[in-house]
Amino acid sequence: MTNAELLSVGAELLLGETVDTNAAFLGAELATIGLPLRHARMLPDDRSIIRDAFIEARERSTVVLATGGLGPTHDDLTREAIADALAEPLHEDPALLAELEERFRAFGRMPSSNRRQATLIPSAQALPNPIGSAPGWWVESDGVVIAAMPGVPSEMRRMWAEQVRPRLEALFARPPLATRTVKAFGIGESAMAERLGAIIAEPPDGVDVGIYARDDGVHVRFSTLGDASVLDPLANRALAALGEDAYGTDETDLPGAALARLAELGVAELSSWESDTDGALLAVLAATPLRDGITRYLGGVLDLGTPSGPPIGDAVLQVSLLPQDAHGRSRVRVAMSGAVSIPPTELRIHGSGPQRLRRAAFAALDAVRRVSSSGR
Amino acid sequence: MTNAELLSVGAELLLGETVDTNAAFLGAELATIGLPLRHARMLPDDRSIIRDAFIEARERSTVVLATGGLGPTHDDLTREAIADALAEPLHEDPALLAELEERFRAFGRMPSSNRRQATLIPSAQALPNPIGSAPGWWVESDGVVIAAMPGVPSEMRRMWAEQVRPRLEALFARPPLATRTVKAFGIGESAMAERLGAIIAEPPDGVDVGIYARDDGVHVRFSTLGDASVLDPLANRALAALGEDAYGTDETDLPGAALARLAELGVAELSSWESDTDGALLAVLAATPLRDGITRYLGGVLDLGTPSGPPIGDAVLQVSLLPQDAHGRSRVRVAMSGAVSIPPTELRIHGSGPQRLRRAAFAALDAVRRVSSSGR
Repeated sequence: MTNAELLSVGAELLLGETVDTNAAFLGAELATIGLPLRHARMLPDDRSIIRDAFIEARERSTVVLATGGLGPTHDDLTREAIADALAEPLHEDPALLAELEERFRAFGRMPSSNRRQATLIPSAQALPNPIGSAPGWWVESDGVVIAAMPGVPSEMRRMWAEQVRPRLEALFARPPLATRTVKAFGIGESAMAERLGAIIAEPPDGVDVGIYARDDGVHVRFSTLGDASVLDPLANRALAALGEDAYGTDETDLPGAALARLAELGVAELSSWESDTDGALLAVLAATPLRDGITRYLGGVLDLGTPSGPPIGDAVLQVSLLPQDAHGRSRVRVAMSGAVSIPPTELRIHGSGPQRLRRAAFAALDAVRRVSSSGR
Repeated sequence: MTNAELLSVGAELLLGETVDTNAAFLGAELATIGLPLRHARMLPDDRSIIRDAFIEARERSTVVLATGGLGPTHDDLTREAIADALAEPLHEDPALLAELEERFRAFGRMPSSNRRQATLIPSAQALPNPIGSAPGWWVESDGVVIAAMPGVPSEMRRMWAEQVRPRLEALFARPPLATRTVKAFGIGESAMAERLGAIIAEPPDGVDVGIYARDDGVHVRFSTLGDASVLDPLANRALAALGEDAYGTDETDLPGAALARLAELGVAELSSWESDTDGALLAVLAATPLRDGITRYLGGVLDLGTPSGPPIGDAVLQVSLLPQDAHGRSRVRVAMSGAVSIPPTELRIHGSGPQRLRRAAFAALDAVRRVSSSGR
């Protein structure tokens, strides 16, 4: 069995100064090429700890991905650690050095610290990085692949898409992990489990089922490495069992479902006003890609006390997060005016901190998604 | 030496469906109580893999934190895995069961699957979860502490703050990791390293130095577990060496620096217009907490083509992300009108995907931060 493993290198990850979004990106990508990630670790900028992690990873995994530690500074140690793990010497590669110097020509001379980025070991090939100075490394040795990529997400993603993913697909052609997800809002995890009953208690052979609480509701995910056609009937049964609490499947998101419902009701353009949410509604709506069949979001205003400015568009969604009560419970006041209206309604939400703000926004969008034609 | 380790449990993490923000939160918190995180792993919902991870973690770490796998559904296996790792039997705890049933009384009867959340092992104490159904576990055995917390961030954070952190502080009083960070925009990592020179090449004994490329620029972080007073002179020398490219230290963020500069120039309220950024500017500005001494952000509009609506406030920041050129390079057009003005200016940015959009917003805010008094 081919195992994939990820080593995320950087003290800033373990110190909590950076959230490791690369791990989630690579986990999702690896699943689509049938090499699901089995292990993922964060490592400090310590040459011997990184070396030991590569040694251990090569013992149990066929594919070892690494991100980070390829920069020009003294704390970038992934190259040295791989050389140590494979007991191979580092050398400066003249062609790589020439490319790096060419890259820096536009800015003046190359800082001397960048010479470290032109080093290789005998079993490593350089992976081009067209948008940064850190080349990646591709190492095939003893039947194990190591692919070391930069930690900067844009550079990592491009190197993954152009260099690493195609090579892995060529070496390890696998059926992809097929998944179907059904999403609901307004019920808890255990209530969802009860309503789904036998659908999740007795799934077909080879199908895994997981239930996850998220800011945008509760998701049930069916997945298989086998015949994907078994998943559609499961998703359809889950949709039927969840009824109106289900708002979509797979790529459907709650803001998209809300904006699609408004479009059905004839609203072309929506704006927002919100108070005490630090712009959570505006951030969620702004991040929703525009597509055919959904209402266009125009922008919004923070704080209902603002004397001037919008409303703009055909309808204005208003959200006001109320103070937490003595038990730490929250309510959010939601209303919509314009071409479609929602009378002022108070909804309960859970959570604290930034999650509380996002859940207030999602609760409002769930109310929009459920609006009946009589609201017009 | 006391080592802290984190096990993040959940298939959704390795599949990339959820970004593990808990790891960053706990990493930052552990550093503040002098128990820096040395290892962090993600684990699938597999009882034997989780068991083995707890066995391995207990061998090398004094404090083992876990998040996730405490829910009511069949794929929540952290309790069982800890019981297996310690070879202790699981039993249903009558007091915990009564609390759970009381909790569900308000919603009707308790789903039977939640009974699993009332189980303990002999060496585990339950950690109360006032905002969710999953109690945590606190296990002291063989000189090692295990603290298992829910995966839902709001529940984990509250249990951490009220239960786990105070117990760890009582058991392992340590000097906290002291850090100072200096942040700059408009230069790369290696240019920063050159300009800092000896400040980072020869730091005082016991001081670690790291340089990190982020969406909001490049950060240099000085940290020590020893005498914190050595850090201030280092930060001050770094600020001096970076000159106008430095925009702040520690908690200062780039939007805050930009809004503080506008406030100095007499702008009370700012709005924004942006195109082809999916609302990145609006999201960044909305997430900036309002405080004294900074201009208040009122909201904004997506797409400069919008015929009606704002400008509102004293000044309008306009950002237009231009298409990538044939080499994948991006430029962003920035302008500001109103009480303070910036003539239309094109700035270069790096990155792709969502990072490209965020960097466009940060480049605009950097231009605002650098605006001179003549812009008034």
